[in-house]
Amino acid sequence: MLMRAARLHEIGGPERLTVESIEAPQPGPGEVLVAVRAAALNHRDVFITQGLYPNITLPRTLGSDGAGEVAALGEGASAPVVGAACVIDPMLEWGDDPAVWGPRAAILGMPRDGTFAQYVAVPAENVYAAPRGLSVEELAALPLAGLTAYRATFTRGGLQAGETVLITGIGGGVQTFVLLFAKHAGARVIATSGSDAKLARARELGADVTINYRTDEQWYKTARAAGPIDLVVDSSGGASLARAVGAVRPGGRVVIYGGTTGDVTLKPFSIFWQHLDIRGTSMGSPQDFRAMLDLVAAGVRPAIDRTFPLNDIATAAQRMQDAEQFGKIILTI
Amino acid sequence: MLMRAARLHEIGGPERLTVESIEAPQPGPGEVLVAVRAAALNHRDVFITQGLYPNITLPRTLGSDGAGEVAALGEGASAPVVGAACVIDPMLEWGDDPAVWGPRAAILGMPRDGTFAQYVAVPAENVYAAPRGLSVEELAALPLAGLTAYRATFTRGGLQAGETVLITGIGGGVQTFVLLFAKHAGARVIATSGSDAKLARARELGADVTINYRTDEQWYKTARAAGPIDLVVDSSGGASLARAVGAVRPGGRVVIYGGTTGDVTLKPFSIFWQHLDIRGTSMGSPQDFRAMLDLVAAGVRPAIDRTFPLNDIATAAQRMQDAEQFGKIILTI
Repeated sequence: MLMRAARLHEIGGPERLTVESIEAPQPGPGEVLVAVRAAALNHRDVFITQGLYPNITLPRTLGSDGAGEVAALGEGASAPVVGAACVIDPMLEWGDDPAVWGPRAAILGMPRDGTFAQYVAVPAENVYAAPRGLSVEELAALPLAGLTAYRATFTRGGLQAGETVLITGIGGGVQTFVLLFAKHAGARVIATSGSDAKLARARELGADVTINYRTDEQWYKTARAAGPIDLVVDSSGGASLARAVGAVRPGGRVVIYGGTTGDVTLKPFSIFWQHLDIRGTSMGSPQDFRAMLDLVAAGVRPAIDRTFPLNDIATAAQRMQDAEQFGKIILTI
Repeated sequence: MLMRAARLHEIGGPERLTVESIEAPQPGPGEVLVAVRAAALNHRDVFITQGLYPNITLPRTLGSDGAGEVAALGEGASAPVVGAACVIDPMLEWGDDPAVWGPRAAILGMPRDGTFAQYVAVPAENVYAAPRGLSVEELAALPLAGLTAYRATFTRGGLQAGETVLITGIGGGVQTFVLLFAKHAGARVIATSGSDAKLARARELGADVTINYRTDEQWYKTARAAGPIDLVVDSSGGASLARAVGAVRPGGRVVIYGGTTGDVTLKPFSIFWQHLDIRGTSMGSPQDFRAMLDLVAAGVRPAIDRTFPLNDIATAAQRMQDAEQFGKIILTI
C-alpha cells in the first residue's frame, strides 16, 4: 500500500522536505499502525532539516506529533481497538526511571519514521485513546509540546495554585502549553516576548503580566517587581536565562528544557545564597504523558497557530523557523 | 564582668584579629549566655577579616562555632538548664520556610558578636544540649560546617545508601563532613584534592576513590569512569563546577554551597538533556541542625585538623587562609 509522506533526503533546511508516495509501514510485533489525520511541527523537525540534531539518518519521514485512528494491530499488540481515535506519545522507550530517560530512549520522527505521513507504525504502549471533546487538529497539537510543558511545569517545576511562573519568550508550542497549564492550575503567569502581538495573544489566554523584552531592556527587573516569581520556565539559555535566574525569588525554581541562545554564565553566589534550584528536563515519562492527557481532558484547549495541508509542509516549517507562530502549527493529512 | 575575646577592629586579613579584655555580654530576654570552652574557625571568619562579606560592622567579636556550658538564662529563656553542656546553632532567625532562609536570617559572628570569646549571648532556640560522647573540641567542630554539610548532602542532595557522591576539593570543614556523613549513610565517596596528603586523610576517613586534580588534569573523566556519580557536592564554582556538572550521571544532582573560583559557564543542553538538578544551599534550618546532631550522636566523629589556644587565633586563621587544613581548626578558650 502506497501513502503520502513528507520525507527528508538531504540536509539543507525546511525547503528540503518533499511530499512523495512511499510504501506504508507495517506494524511489527507489539506495534500499532495509526492512520494519521493531523500532525504538528516542532522545532526539532526544523533542526533536523538543518542537520542540527544528533544521529540523523536519511532518508526519513519526519514528525513527532500525530493523532488519528488505529488502523491495524501488529502481533501481540492490544489496546486501543481498531478504529479508535488516538493520539501518539512520541517518547519511545523512556525506560524504568521516572526521573530520567534511559539509554534506549528515542523520539518518534528520527531515527524512526514519524507522523508526517498517512500512516505511522509505533509501539502499542505509545498509543493513547484520545481525550474527548478535542478536534483531531487539537489532539495533534498535544504530544511533544504538551508532554514537555507538563513535565517542566509540574513534575520538574512543582508549580502550585497561587504561585507565579515566569515564562520567557512565549509563542512556541511548549511555552504556550506552560501558560495554559499554569492558568488551569490556578497559578499566576508573567510572560515575555519580543512581539507585542504574541503578548496580546498570551493575555487572551490568561497571562496576568506581559513584558516586551525588546522595548523593556530591564524586563527581568520588571518581572521581578511583578513577582515574587516562584518558578521560571525557560528554553532560551544564554544571557536571558542568567537574568531569569536573577529574577526568581529566594528558594525558587528554574526549569530549562532548551538553550537556543547558547551557554549561560552564572554566579554561584546567586544560586547558593538564594537556595535556588535549576532543573533540566526534556520530553517526559509515560506517567507525564498520561497526566498531561488527563489535564487536557479536564478542560485545556491547545493554542493552534495555523493549519496547513501536508503538501505545504515546507511553508509551514519556514514559519516555525522564522518564529512567527503563536501556538502549534498543524498539518492536516 | 570582663572576658577575653578575639576582636576585629579593622579590615586587613587574619593578622588583624586581636585578643583583648572586654565586658562580657548579658543575655537579653529569650537569650542564653554560653560559657564557650571551644570554638572553631570557618572560611567566613577569614573572609570577614579581608572585608569580603556583606554588612560588616566593626569592632566585632567574630566566631560562628562554639560549644561549652549554659552560664545564665535571660528573661523568659528556658532550656537547657544552667550548667548543661551545649552546642550553638549559628543560624539565627532562619524563618518559617524549611526551603529557604527568611529576610531576617543572620549568622552568628557578624553582625552579632560571636564565639571567639569566653562568653557569648545567643537566642535560647539556638542552644542545643550536646550529644553525648564527644569532646568539647569535637562539639565545637560541628555547628556551621556540620549544618551546611548535612543540608547539602541530605536535605538538598537527597543522598541515599548505595549512591555515589563526588566531593570536589576535600579538606575544608564542610567537605570533610560531607565525606563523614556520606560514609555513615552507606554511600560511596569519590573525593578530589590538589594535595596527596589530604587525599590520604580522606581515604583514612573512608573515601573509596581519590583523585589529585593537579596531577590528573582529566580528573572529571577519571571521576566519571569511577561512577556513575549520583550527586556532586561543590563549593569551588568556576571551571571545576562546570566539569563536575559534566561528570554526574543522567538524572543526577549537583549541590553547591560556595563558589570560590567565581562564575561558572554551563551548556544548557548538558543540563536539560541529562535531566540534571543544580541546587544551591547555604547553612541550614533548625530541622537540619537537629537532624545533624542526631546523625552525629549515631556515631560520626568530626575530623579535627589542629587545636590552638585563643591567643593564637591569627596563626590559626592564617592556616585556614592558606588552605592547609584537613577538617576543622579548633580554638580552646
